[in-house]
Amino acid sequence: LNHATLRAMAAADSDVWPAIDRAAHLRKDIDALEADLRAEGSLLLPVWRDQSLIDGERLAALDLARARALLDVGGELVWLGKLGAAGCFALDVSALPEPLQHPALAQRGEFKDLRFVGGALPAEQAAVALYARGILYWHRRHAHCGACGGTTAAREGGHVRVCRAEACATQHFPRTDPAVIVLVHDGDDCLLGRQRTWPKTMYSTLAGFVEPGETLEQAVAREVEEESGVRVAVDDVRYFRSQPWPFPSSLMVGFTARAQGRELRASDELEDARWFSRAQLRDPRAHGFYVPGRFSLAGQLIEAFLAQP
Amino acid sequence: LNHATLRAMAAADSDVWPAIDRAAHLRKDIDALEADLRAEGSLLLPVWRDQSLIDGERLAALDLARARALLDVGGELVWLGKLGAAGCFALDVSALPEPLQHPALAQRGEFKDLRFVGGALPAEQAAVALYARGILYWHRRHAHCGACGGTTAAREGGHVRVCRAEACATQHFPRTDPAVIVLVHDGDDCLLGRQRTWPKTMYSTLAGFVEPGETLEQAVAREVEEESGVRVAVDDVRYFRSQPWPFPSSLMVGFTARAQGRELRASDELEDARWFSRAQLRDPRAHGFYVPGRFSLAGQLIEAFLAQP
Repeated sequence: LNHATLRAMAAADSDVWPAIDRAAHLRKDIDALEADLRAEGSLLLPVWRDQSLIDGERLAALDLARARALLDVGGELVWLGKLGAAGCFALDVSALPEPLQHPALAQRGEFKDLRFVGGALPAEQAAVALYARGILYWHRRHAHCGACGGTTAAREGGHVRVCRAEACATQHFPRTDPAVIVLVHDGDDCLLGRQRTWPKTMYSTLAGFVEPGETLEQAVAREVEEESGVRVAVDDVRYFRSQPWPFPSSLMVGFTARAQGRELRASDELEDARWFSRAQLRDPRAHGFYVPGRFSLAGQLIEAFLAQP
Repeated sequence: LNHATLRAMAAADSDVWPAIDRAAHLRKDIDALEADLRAEGSLLLPVWRDQSLIDGERLAALDLARARALLDVGGELVWLGKLGAAGCFALDVSALPEPLQHPALAQRGEFKDLRFVGGALPAEQAAVALYARGILYWHRRHAHCGACGGTTAAREGGHVRVCRAEACATQHFPRTDPAVIVLVHDGDDCLLGRQRTWPKTMYSTLAGFVEPGETLEQAVAREVEEESGVRVAVDDVRYFRSQPWPFPSSLMVGFTARAQGRELRASDELEDARWFSRAQLRDPRAHGFYVPGRFSLAGQLIEAFLAQP
């Protein structure tokens, strides 16, 4: 890919993006980042209050040269890496009260929550959008130093924040919270639950954050028992796959686990948990519930369960 | 297990600890935590400047009733959960300049770094010690609110910190940084590297932190290429197992990956990277290098590689 290709891509024609190259070795190279900031083909991904700029079913990437006025909004600017030969930046434009009235943003799309529209984007676009959203959220939550309370400043293209207090100078790195998500199975059935805050007929696989001092497998066993009363053996927990889930800052690590029993116990964490058969899961609507789609690991875990004999 | 058993255990006789029950539903139950704090069988794990109290090859757990004076040191106290029927607390005693001169600590062991002695402890003791060290480090790094800079206060037995500024009141949860560690293999050889800061003849599997917006598998492929120039396909990355590694706050997620080529490239991150044959790995000393032991995932990955045909 060269600049012309990328400019065309940014302009609208192609949905096929390369995978982003984070090129971490360039982050300390201020000259390289400055050059990308000035280069004509550079791309800008604006994020407004955790929402991404979406144009139909595409992520809108602005030509930075034409959208330069957005830098004056004063939001954090992060150098994400290279998309082909082009530098790619994320910019927080949350300070704008009406972002779509800004000349650089008007007519370029709408700000939407990736949680709901990410599944409609081409995969590489969704990946970059998740990266942009996740790292800008981290910046917002770390304007101050957790150790001393002083203000922090972004360094290295936005991949570290450093406490400005000379006596402290603590470095802070982007935060990602590992969480486990698990499909518990017993023969032809699997265990799904629902939180109080969810839509009334939605059920999903069980999930929870990993705590300090535990393995992923221990977190799976603990969460399943906390949420449902069902026990699974740590040795019976099988890795599935992983997915960044920056809503606001999780990394979901997916597992399957064989139940040691079927008895369910009410918990504080879930409003309900139930066993569902493959027949029910193949036509949830007919059975009065629904499950997450394929954009989430939950949906992928259920799909994989249904694909088994 | 009952109180008497646990007191005996704490006193010295048994190395067999139950797995800790984090019993998260009790964390908001102040009465339950207060009761544990007063109960005669409760156990206290002191941590001094990230070091754990070790008595020979055992983790020293103090009888809280007899060690109550340590609470006056003013360090963070965290309710870890239940060990059998006994409440188990971690206490930061870093404020003591000479901890072993404190009457409650004298003659009870020595403060040591788990990174070096954890492998000698019984597994359940090591797990609790890692948990205690990890969560107390997090408290120290989060005395202030990252969002507004105000001071924070521990709540829920030390499993959340809340900003004291009423207008902010942001909740902060313990931080765990997911990192990947990978044994890259090509036939009878595997790829190990060394960082500049390590002992001169030590080699280990490649590792690095997961960044916002990437899967674990993408992090593996990125880190391997950054550190060695070797490419691995994301689809060729296989999960191994996971391990908490609170030095200071990582969760190591282990993988193996098949190399797509053998050519190595110098990197900023490693001083050296090389291919090692199984024959070399079976007798590293004879070949002038050494590798980590079985306490770490690196050592376990190498052991599993050697066990393959």
